[in-house]
Amino acid sequence: MLTRRVFLGALATLAIPVPRRHWPSPLWRARSQVELAALRIDATRLRHTLESLSQFGRPANGSFADGVSRLAYSDADVQGRAYVLDLIKSVGLSPRLDPAGNILARRDGADASLPPIVFGSHIDSVPNGGNFDGDLGSLSAIEAVRLLNERKIATRHPLEVVVWANEEGVAFNNGLCGSRAVAGKLPPEELEHVYNGVKKTDAIRKIGGDPTRIPDARRSPGSFHCYVELHIEQGGTLEKTGIPIGVVEGIVAIDRYDAVIRGMANHAGTTPMPDRHDALIAAAQLTLAVREIVTSEPGRQVGTVGHLEVVPNAPNVIPGVVRHTIELRDLSASKLERLAQAVRDRARQIAAATGTTIDLTLASHHEAATASPVVQDAIEAAADHLRLAHQRLPSGAGHDAQSMAQLGPMAMIFVPSIGGISHSPRELTSWDDCARGANALLHAVLAADRMDVRS
Amino acid sequence: MLTRRVFLGALATLAIPVPRRHWPSPLWRARSQVELAALRIDATRLRHTLESLSQFGRPANGSFADGVSRLAYSDADVQGRAYVLDLIKSVGLSPRLDPAGNILARRDGADASLPPIVFGSHIDSVPNGGNFDGDLGSLSAIEAVRLLNERKIATRHPLEVVVWANEEGVAFNNGLCGSRAVAGKLPPEELEHVYNGVKKTDAIRKIGGDPTRIPDARRSPGSFHCYVELHIEQGGTLEKTGIPIGVVEGIVAIDRYDAVIRGMANHAGTTPMPDRHDALIAAAQLTLAVREIVTSEPGRQVGTVGHLEVVPNAPNVIPGVVRHTIELRDLSASKLERLAQAVRDRARQIAAATGTTIDLTLASHHEAATASPVVQDAIEAAADHLRLAHQRLPSGAGHDAQSMAQLGPMAMIFVPSIGGISHSPRELTSWDDCARGANALLHAVLAADRMDVRS
Repeated sequence: MLTRRVFLGALATLAIPVPRRHWPSPLWRARSQVELAALRIDATRLRHTLESLSQFGRPANGSFADGVSRLAYSDADVQGRAYVLDLIKSVGLSPRLDPAGNILARRDGADASLPPIVFGSHIDSVPNGGNFDGDLGSLSAIEAVRLLNERKIATRHPLEVVVWANEEGVAFNNGLCGSRAVAGKLPPEELEHVYNGVKKTDAIRKIGGDPTRIPDARRSPGSFHCYVELHIEQGGTLEKTGIPIGVVEGIVAIDRYDAVIRGMANHAGTTPMPDRHDALIAAAQLTLAVREIVTSEPGRQVGTVGHLEVVPNAPNVIPGVVRHTIELRDLSASKLERLAQAVRDRARQIAAATGTTIDLTLASHHEAATASPVVQDAIEAAADHLRLAHQRLPSGAGHDAQSMAQLGPMAMIFVPSIGGISHSPRELTSWDDCARGANALLHAVLAADRMDVRS
Repeated sequence: MLTRRVFLGALATLAIPVPRRHWPSPLWRARSQVELAALRIDATRLRHTLESLSQFGRPANGSFADGVSRLAYSDADVQGRAYVLDLIKSVGLSPRLDPAGNILARRDGADASLPPIVFGSHIDSVPNGGNFDGDLGSLSAIEAVRLLNERKIATRHPLEVVVWANEEGVAFNNGLCGSRAVAGKLPPEELEHVYNGVKKTDAIRKIGGDPTRIPDARRSPGSFHCYVELHIEQGGTLEKTGIPIGVVEGIVAIDRYDAVIRGMANHAGTTPMPDRHDALIAAAQLTLAVREIVTSEPGRQVGTVGHLEVVPNAPNVIPGVVRHTIELRDLSASKLERLAQAVRDRARQIAAATGTTIDLTLASHHEAATASPVVQDAIEAAADHLRLAHQRLPSGAGHDAQSMAQLGPMAMIFVPSIGGISHSPRELTSWDDCARGANALLHAVLAADRMDVRS
């Protein structure tokens, strides 16, 4: 509440104690509360850039509605990035590439001693993905800067637009590649990975990065004022509640387990039902148990068996081995551990009942990333200012914001995904909601510019 | 019972009303009841031939216990068949190949007007299979003839040893290849199939067959007295009951259904549990329902989900589509239909409850093959004579005997599979049980020789 008041106070007074010499241009100036409050991005122009970007990676003879396949490091990615680089130049900034291939564009602030506000997203996609995941946040950030430049509005902090490299991680099966480099979490051995016959070092070179200097991409903690990312929700919560702005409380922790169930492969015709040790029967029970356990307590936790393979996988052979994943997500690490313990207990019971063995091993653990309460407040104040309803919610998906959260204050803005559909050509956010999100981003950045986020 | 008495009577009198000129050799003669009753195959010799045959297709540096990979038409199959051809010659017969590549070896009977008793099995294996499936029945048939030749014992009917080509059907994904040719059920289009880059016509040529003359392999109904096949059970029933001889009542019908479950693929992190249309949840429920339905009534029916695939099959994506097989087996076609109807009903309920669609289509239907009651009686009489306990049971597996059942009286003898394991290097039948099975085959053939099986 204190913070909210601080922000509203800042909007009210706009008392910028900054010498003129620190301003980016003598023409630029602080504006009246009324002028700032009335700032709105050009929704038509934002839509135009989203439609323009959608052409790079679009299926042959397809339309916007056919989605996009713009895998990181692909030719389509290179073309999309060239479009974005030109767009950044056209709004008056000079983009640069860091060694990981991230696109960065700085706009000076009035006070050169202050660290920048970083905001943006990514433009790579999954195969047969949609035109909003990443694109909306990236192009809204550019649109916001364009508006500030057109209106010659100065901010205290420098602004830095970022378009992250390889967020999706379909290529090389490991995402958040650019932002992890910035957080110092892209280990050298990862550069040796090969995907479709191409080494990661060559992929990074292809988009203009320099794999020999990855450590130089690193930013130090506190080197930015805060990080804000606008993104589509990719879930159906906002659409269901009819609320246009989601204020992300944090990015959930993800624990992924590998389950290996060993029964006994045998002849499906000659082995009586009571004599079977059917690994798929055990896997079916465990799959249903995961769902039952995850839904047995209130909360937004989710659990998924998404990958499953059967050995030998023949219609006339009783499955001998089943391997499947179990993925659990929640903001609370302790809840995740409690759920995992319940799954382990149930696995033991199922193994005993089906005459199989079940081994569960933790394959990967991603820590939750907590959003900064102050930056969340800035987003809520911006939404209030725009008279947009908002609600807090966790992000079930991973985002580059979680890399940035390791270095400084972070928060994210979600806008509704129609039908909760994402990673699909049917991924859709209404143009009105796109504009609402872009305006929330703009005003959240302006609000954060006036705030001390280190609380 | 009538039949049993006829058989025992035949053993008692051995009054063969056959002119001497019809005997295969003037030296050969009918023997006294005591001499015939005391006939036993040479168990050591049978074991030796099984061990010798096991070398063709054995893993490098492996032993008998490491099993065999003797896929039909492979080099190992060609070598194994060469061994068998030599073995047949060494026992005094002249083997020939029919156009489908089946090995046939005829021994004249005392009455040339009578049709032959056919008996044998196959020697091809699955990959990483065992040394008993097929081999035992084939080599026991040869051993039985060897014994009759050594003792110069005449039978009324000609005897015909058969070693069928490509029973397993791993190659070209379609089994009983040789016996189906004999039953006129190897359609010309099947010859066009390609497996591992080899056309079936070339595969048949490789083992000495003539694909241009497949119709000539056909036998007419009534062209043989009866067909008897010794085989390992491949299930655990006999081992469990401690009974050494199984008398097969018939080979089960097999209905195979393809289930296609369509939910909605979505982000595993952003899609709340209640909003999911998870195709794998539906598939897990259906897999468990199949087992529950099949085990909900008494009987030996079995049901198996052996093949299952998930789309897109990624740990972080809710499964959108699952395709799996449902295989139901029983001797009774009406029971199979009843079970299938229960599965269809349950699938409808599961689809409604999970927000998915489930399509079930009958992919293949194999009719049951009923064993001849008279030939079953002959096997039981032989077992009684050998003082071996016996029980009737269905064959859950397919066998060449089902092709022969389309043309004339058929029955099969099963011996115990340790642990019910088959199609595995761990497939095992004790040498004592092998010998018991071979003796049961010998005496069943001798019994059938005295019987009118057309009842």
